Amino acid sequence: MSLSVDLNCDMGESFAAWTMGDDRAMLDIVTTANIACGFHAGDPMVMHDTLTLARERGVQVGAHPSFMDLVGFGRRRIEGETPQDLEKQLIYQIGAMRAMAEAVDHPIRHVKTHGALGNMAAEDRELALAVSRAIRAVDADLIHLCMPGMQTSVTAQSLGLQVGNEVFADRAYADNGNLLSRKLPGAVIHDPDAAADRVLRMLEAQAVTTVSGKQFPLAIDSVCVHGDTPGAVAMADTLRRRLESAGVAIRPMADLVASR
Amino acid sequence: MSLSVDLNCDMGESFAAWTMGDDRAMLDIVTTANIACGFHAGDPMVMHDTLTLARERGVQVGAHPSFMDLVGFGRRRIEGETPQDLEKQLIYQIGAMRAMAEAVDHPIRHVKTHGALGNMAAEDRELALAVSRAIRAVDADLIHLCMPGMQTSVTAQSLGLQVGNEVFADRAYADNGNLLSRKLPGAVIHDPDAAADRVLRMLEAQAVTTVSGKQFPLAIDSVCVHGDTPGAVAMADTLRRRLESAGVAIRPMADLVASR
Amino acid sequence: MSLSVDLNCDMGESFAAWTMGDDRAMLDIVTTANIACGFHAGDPMVMHDTLTLARERGVQVGAHPSFMDLVGFGRRRIEGETPQDLEKQLIYQIGAMRAMAEAVDHPIRHVKTHGALGNMAAEDRELALAVSRAIRAVDADLIHLCMPGMQTSVTAQSLGLQVGNEVFADRAYADNGNLLSRKLPGAVIHDPDAAADRVLRMLEAQAVTTVSGKQFPLAIDSVCVHGDTPGAVAMADTLRRRLESAGVAIRPMADLVASR
Amino acid sequence: MSLSVDLNCDMGESFAAWTMGDDRAMLDIVTTANIACGFHAGDPMVMHDTLTLARERGVQVGAHPSFMDLVGFGRRRIEGETPQDLEKQLIYQIGAMRAMAEAVDHPIRHVKTHGALGNMAAEDRELALAVSRAIRAVDADLIHLCMPGMQTSVTAQSLGLQVGNEVFADRAYADNGNLLSRKLPGAVIHDPDAAADRVLRMLEAQAVTTVSGKQFPLAIDSVCVHGDTPGAVAMADTLRRRLESAGVAIRPMADLVASR
Repeated sequence: MSLSVDLNCDMGESFAAWTMGDDRAMLDIVTTANIACGFHAGDPMVMHDTLTLARERGVQVGAHPSFMDLVGFGRRRIEGETPQDLEKQLIYQIGAMRAMAEAVDHPIRHVKTHGALGNMAAEDRELALAVSRAIRAVDADLIHLCMPGMQTSVTAQSLGLQVGNEVFADRAYADNGNLLSRKLPGAVIHDPDAAADRVLRMLEAQAVTTVSGKQFPLAIDSVCVHGDTPGAVAMADTLRRRLESAGVAIRPMADLVASR
Repeated sequence: MSLSVDLNCDMGESFAAWTMGDDRAMLDIVTTANIACGFHAGDPMVMHDTLTLARERGVQVGAHPSFMDLVGFGRRRIEGETPQDLEKQLIYQIGAMRAMAEAVDHPIRHVKTHGALGNMAAEDRELALAVSRAIRAVDADLIHLCMPGMQTSVTAQSLGLQVGNEVFADRAYADNGNLLSRKLPGAVIHDPDAAADRVLRMLEAQAVTTVSGKQFPLAIDSVCVHGDTPGAVAMADTLRRRLESAGVAIRPMADLVASR
Repeated sequence: MSLSVDLNCDMGESFAAWTMGDDRAMLDIVTTANIACGFHAGDPMVMHDTLTLARERGVQVGAHPSFMDLVGFGRRRIEGETPQDLEKQLIYQIGAMRAMAEAVDHPIRHVKTHGALGNMAAEDRELALAVSRAIRAVDADLIHLCMPGMQTSVTAQSLGLQVGNEVFADRAYADNGNLLSRKLPGAVIHDPDAAADRVLRMLEAQAVTTVSGKQFPLAIDSVCVHGDTPGAVAMADTLRRRLESAGVAIRPMADLVASR
Repeated sequence: MSLSVDLNCDMGESFAAWTMGDDRAMLDIVTTANIACGFHAGDPMVMHDTLTLARERGVQVGAHPSFMDLVGFGRRRIEGETPQDLEKQLIYQIGAMRAMAEAVDHPIRHVKTHGALGNMAAEDRELALAVSRAIRAVDADLIHLCMPGMQTSVTAQSLGLQVGNEVFADRAYADNGNLLSRKLPGAVIHDPDAAADRVLRMLEAQAVTTVSGKQFPLAIDSVCVHGDTPGAVAMADTLRRRLESAGVAIRPMADLVASR
């Protein structure tokens, strides 16, 4: 293979006196960091320090905005946010992160939505449009990193935004191209080598094989690895080594998208 | 007199389901609005709506950042924030407001600090430097609206920022040029005409008369009026009419500073 | 008629520097106050002051707990709270209110859930059980004030709690005995006299007439009036006068339930 | 020696998705747990789970209230809280914890203030009185665990509360009996055996030796060990073993105070 792919990871999810994940270790493995903006995790000090670490390691950065839901870590599905209000909440978060990133001389290149917001927007065109509009309002050059085929990807492109296509190393896919619910058996892959095998197959085929065996074709720019689960660093490390052994170049998503 | 002066007011201090002040009425009176950034008051929806109203009325806008202190409305003096952390908190707030203002096509022109943060930075060079650095980091063209003679004014100028000089319509001054503590008798002027008389004398003399009768000279760009007290609208309205009757032109602070 | 009924109203929904509603006026009209516990509104100072005012006016009090959702004022439906976690959140809120009420020598007699939590628990047996268990855990003598026929009422009684039955003065009912969605035409009654007529008919019949004309029988202990809408005080005042004119005695819910 | 002493530790300082400290390990070592009440750390779920673990290990529990300051972890000195407001904030926290503890059938026996609030109240009679009044308002049988000689100890006794006297294993003392500021050299003892030696000397003498060599006499009920610092578990473990080797019985503070 003469393939290139990015590894992306959520980061900067510590808050105030509390630490989450091992960002330093993950920054030695991944090429793109999605940094929390203070609504589900992160705060101005954590944002600043994570951006600075990423700059020092040459890892590209983006905003990782969420519902306003600190106590739920942005994982609770919140009904009743209008798309209009959501758009304003996203402009706020992306704007704050963008200013902080410029202050540490390491500008953001992309936006990736977090948790329940990401899941809901993937399936709801109005919420997806709110996300796309917010990104465009702050900076139309920002790439939207999202799952191909989802509403978020469709609306981003319809508004003229560039999209980065991501797949998940450790998740099974449903036939609609979305992730299989975590509640179903086999939804999460825990073995690092099994995850690496899976990613290599996806890259070769530029498609995912869904639970029913269906091929779902997609261009792959980036593989999402998790940073906040037990064994996260080992999983990411194994994946990177297996990809490199197979001749896959690990390059930042924004560079890959720019060079298409 | 052929004088010009700005009237500025804190705004956008509603939060979530709660309303504060009568921003619509004040926007018909003042020429500059300092808009809360979500740390002591305001939220993305309030910010968006206040910026939009200000644009419609032709009122210039700026960021009004604070300590992280929603329950204390930014009025509690918080010891133990390092200047480094404070700088990051301010970059976050100013950055968020800047992005929102650009999204509604009404860019911010200035920054004015809120409450206890403003009071503490006025007297503490390290905190004042943190404020100045944060403003410069986000946008070196932003004007710092502050009280002349205070540390915040000194550090802003030392870092090459433009400053707007403000006086208070309804407050007495101590001999050091700072506001007299609210705890002391006579610190707050409640009568609109007395406040207007006072402002007219300050503008003529380009100086304030302190409690002991001392003249404290200062160039005056803007007069701060309050929006969240009983009688606030009447006070501001009286002041504007009295100033106009006396031949003082009411013009936005940022324009005055730019035309110096 | 020789009927008695209680009027209940949500109160203490100010927060920090922000005021909501006119609690003083409502306390002159109603006989039971449901006081916010700090999760959707209220704070320790507001709770203390509202309890004290209620004691002075002889208005009975209860806890008005909510989802943890200050920015959404408890109105957002939050998916993903387990009943187990919700039970703990309710114990916390009811316990805090109970201690505060004892500190001001005006003990709480009941609990009424707020907003989206109340709506969701009314229809979901597991959530309803969490509410009932939390009440029983804090004080098994507390009455659960809720809508008759709903899951919350059923589970409260199955756990041995006393229930107070409430109807709404200004809302139309669906055929399942629940409130008609606010999104549907005719769901909210704005005219005070129409609302009073409606309440009088319900009291006479001890039933509600649903939108389709169906009679839904229920024993009525209390009528809920709103305190945070425009015209709230006038609506409540009209209702009280109309009830009294018709010979209905206005008595606190907890007394009515105790004397059954 | 035929001495008895308690070991107490702050716990339950995780929050939402974030973990702090190793409460399970500390619960195997200490005999009293001070549990965060949600204002600087902790939430209803963490409170519930920590109380349950403590009950299972036979560790006695108390409320560990704080300023309303989640982002500052209760460590920031907040000026401008009136004693009246502080009292209400404390009633809220202690009441919530008391209800939760009763719900898990492991009632609280004491209150210990956290961080900046504890430090400020130790030196300010009005704040100290607010603490004492709040404890008494919730339950006059609760013991106030605090440093002997401080204002908090004085006011607690003047209001008829029982006090538990604590010393710190890893801190040097100033001549006024208060802890030496962390900013001064030698303020914090990092070596577990040095800390144990120190505690043994204090217990034998029932006094502390201050930095200047002065003896400051005090009755010692409890030794505070920290749970959230690197090496915390090792420090606590060494201390317990050294105390037991020296024949000191490790018994819960509330039992010691009750048997005086």
